Order: sequence, then C-alpha cells, then structure tokens
Amino acid sequence: SGLVLVKNPHLDLMEEDILYHLDLGTKTHNLPAMFGDIKFVCVGGSPNRMRAFAQFMHRELGLAGDGEDVADICAGSDRYAMYRAGPVLSISHGMGIPSISIMLHELIKLLHHAKCRDVTIIRIGTSGGLGIEAGSVVITDTAVDSSFQPRFEQVVLDDVVVRSTELDKDLAEELLACSREIPDFPTLIGHTMCTYDFYEGQGRLDGALCSFSNEKKLEYLRRAYDAGVRNIEMESTAFAALCGLCGLKGKSCRFHLL
Amino acid sequence: SGLVLVKNPHLDLMEEDILYHLDLGTKTHNLPAMFGDIKFVCVGGSPNRMRAFAQFMHRELGLAGDGEDVADICAGSDRYAMYRAGPVLSISHGMGIPSISIMLHELIKLLHHAKCRDVTIIRIGTSGGLGIEAGSVVITDTAVDSSFQPRFEQVVLDDVVVRSTELDKDLAEELLACSREIPDFPTLIGHTMCTYDFYEGQGRLDGALCSFSNEKKLEYLRRAYDAGVRNIEMESTAFAALCGLCGLKGKSCRFHLL
Repeated sequence: SGLVLVKNPHLDLMEEDILYHLDLGTKTHNLPAMFGDIKFVCVGGSPNRMRAFAQFMHRELGLAGDGEDVADICAGSDRYAMYRAGPVLSISHGMGIPSISIMLHELIKLLHHAKCRDVTIIRIGTSGGLGIEAGSVVITDTAVDSSFQPRFEQVVLDDVVVRSTELDKDLAEELLACSREIPDFPTLIGHTMCTYDFYEGQGRLDGALCSFSNEKKLEYLRRAYDAGVRNIEMESTAFAALCGLCGLKGKSCRFHLL
Repeated sequence: SGLVLVKNPHLDLMEEDILYHLDLGTKTHNLPAMFGDIKFVCVGGSPNRMRAFAQFMHRELGLAGDGEDVADICAGSDRYAMYRAGPVLSISHGMGIPSISIMLHELIKLLHHAKCRDVTIIRIGTSGGLGIEAGSVVITDTAVDSSFQPRFEQVVLDDVVVRSTELDKDLAEELLACSREIPDFPTLIGHTMCTYDFYEGQGRLDGALCSFSNEKKLEYLRRAYDAGVRNIEMESTAFAALCGLCGLKGKSCRFHLL
C-alpha cells in the first residue's frame, strides 16, 4: 500500500502520541492534513542548512513566493528544525547517532500517523572524504561501522541488538544518474563509515586528547579505503538501520545518503 | 598551577587551532582576552535553556543591565550556542554522547588556549528520574553505562578504549549543601545512567520500534535502581571521562552533573 508501517504494538494502545522533540502530537496537531502529501524527506545535521535547503527546493519547484519566509514547523522546540517546500520535508538532526535516532523515531511515527505513502528519505550533509577529490559527492551504497562492517549495534535496555545497514541500491543508481546531468560535479558510489566521535574516532590529531600516532592514523585510514570506505561521518549506520527496520524499504519508502 | 592541561603533543606543533564547531580559533580570536577570567562552565543540551541560564546568572550576579541581550559567542555556527555572564560560561551541547564529545574537545582546548585557571565545569539538564519524586534534582556521584558500570567506552580509530567516569565527590557534597538552603527543592546524590538512545535504550514503549515488553522494561529499571541509579540521560559518561582525562580533576578544575 506504500504506507509507512511502524511495528510497535504499543502505539495503537496509546490515546495520544506526543512527538516531544518535534513539538508535535496526535491530539494537538492534525498530522494527516499537515503532512499526508509528503513524498520526500531530506535530513541533515545543521538547522540553518536544512532551512536553506527548503528555500532552495521552494525555488526549484517553482512554488508561489520566494520561499525566504519558510516557517520552522518545530519552532516550539529548539532540538530540531523542520521546514517544508511542497511535497519535500527538510529536517535537521544534530550531530551523532543518538541525536539522529531520537529524530528518526519521531519522524517515522509522524509519517505513520500522517498516513504518508511512497516516501523517499535521503540524508544530505557534509562528511570527510577518503582518497577522493575535495568537493566530491559520495552516494552511499553501504553504511559501515568503525570495523568496516555493515552493521549497527544498538543497546536496547541492556541487550546489544545488531541491525543491518543495507541501503536502497536502485535509489543510489538513480541519484548517480542525476549527477551525470550536472557538469563539474564529481560524484561516486562508495561505502560510508560512521563513527561515534569526530576527533579520536576519525583520526584527527587536533583533538583535546591524543591517544594515537600519525602512523597509526594513516594505517587505519588506508585499511578503511581498502575496505571500500570513501567518506566518514557520524549518522549513517543508525539512519540505515532505523529506516530499514521500520518498513521503509522497497516500494513503501526508499532511503539513502547523499 | 590550576591551568587546564591538554595532553596532546600535536597541539603545540600547530600554527593555528580552529575550534570549528564553536566558530572560534587561536588566530582569529584573542582567546585569553575573551575567556581568561572564566571560573565556571555550565553545559546543557538546549541552546534556548543555556541562554536563559546565562540571563539568570547575569541577574544573580548583579551585573550591569538586565542581561536580556546576552550575545551568542558562537553565532557564526549553528552547532552550539555559547553565552557568558561574568566569570560563568554557559554552552549548549545538543543531545547524545557524540554531540557533547565534539563540544567538550573544543571547549577543553579553548580553556587551555585561554590560560584559564581553577575552572569548575558543571553539566545541568533534564533527565528521567528513577524511583524518585518528580522534580527532584539528582547530583551525580558516578556516571554509569547501560550495564551500570562506571566506564565510558570510546572507539579510538578501531581500538576500544575504556575510560573512568569518576566525578568530584567534594563538589557533589558542596552542591548538596547549597540545595539545603533552598526550601522545597528535593535534592539527592545518586548514580546517573547514560544511554545511547532515548526510546529503546531507556525503556520507552512509545518508540517507533518495539523490541521489548513492558515486563522486561520494568525488570531492567528495577535492576538499575538496585544498582544505585536514580536518573537516566544521554551524556554523563562522556562528560565525566573527557573532563577527567584532560587534567580537569582535583584542584585545576572540578566537574559534576546536576
């Protein structure tokens, strides 16, 4: 049916679902009226950038007005910012796996409550490139952890649950095809490595702590490159695992990283 | 000497240190002039709340003006917000361990470059209470992970490094003594549990996913309570480990959670 399915039996028993960090809820807002026609969701770290992206989409889609005054739908919360331009929703998720996890939990429930159909989710954002030309766009085929494995380990209460980080291959090819229409825009498909830390986790010697040598850093990054990693960021494994687990795969919803 | 020491030999070799996510740097800003007299740093998740806290401190300290127009020192970046009121710095850190880790790396280097002395760092924020009266303030004596252990596991490149999450006991007692001067303000000292997820990690049945039963949740939270946990949040172990490792213990700098 293309609907976003949430495999949580508790949800149907709740009189009200408050999406606390988005400042939205099933009793306070008419979610189907507000979001039922959403077809694309783009998520990224910085609120200012996601605002600029919504304004860009507004212009690209030729919507009425200049889009400069696009309103923050989550203005009542300073945890995340959310904007829409036609069928495109643009949301910030902050930095790191815990921050994007909270947002995705509430976003997925939002799409479910709003009865959205055939939604594509794309994460856009900056990342550190590995052995590629500066300014390149990496379309992720697989999100991997710091051991280069396609998995996301989530502690659920005190159990460690391992989840797949598989992404939609057709969407990756479609995005690559789009990039070919834009000259001078180096774009490639590769693995994206997700870390829990920006400094120590990614081999930056200018962190406040220093627990490794430059040699160890280079050896590690070389192994990552050999394993197919082309860029490094801090959210991709959680993004892939959470979207995949919530019935957002295949026809009902596609997701990928840009 | 009370100085904040950074045990990173690479730092001294750098011509310039850019604190990217704070939009500050050693060449673009006179950090000793801007921050050298800072004695207290308070950190918390939400930028709006940390602004309100700076305004509150401005009034409490009897500084000139009403403090309403306190400026965001990191206005050039939308990753974090930073305000000051006299010797007190108030900074937001977003949600989750990766987000606070980035901020703490850059904050600790900032205090080092600014030659600050005898700095006390305190994390303030909301948390979920466990078996305590709603509205209570929990002063953390020990930050523990989801297995109730006083440790923080950080992946440094591909090594897992285990760090201590010990906090300053004297400061905990001092803060508790302060609370006794305020009537009707239930305050206690206890362990604080830090999780990587808000929904599944903390036993919230209203997450988008549902991988556990209400019985399992109650059994887990009961075990946490028996282990001394009185509240749950998402940053305490990284806060304790990073501050402790950077020479911020004892006389040079004290840190704790409120």
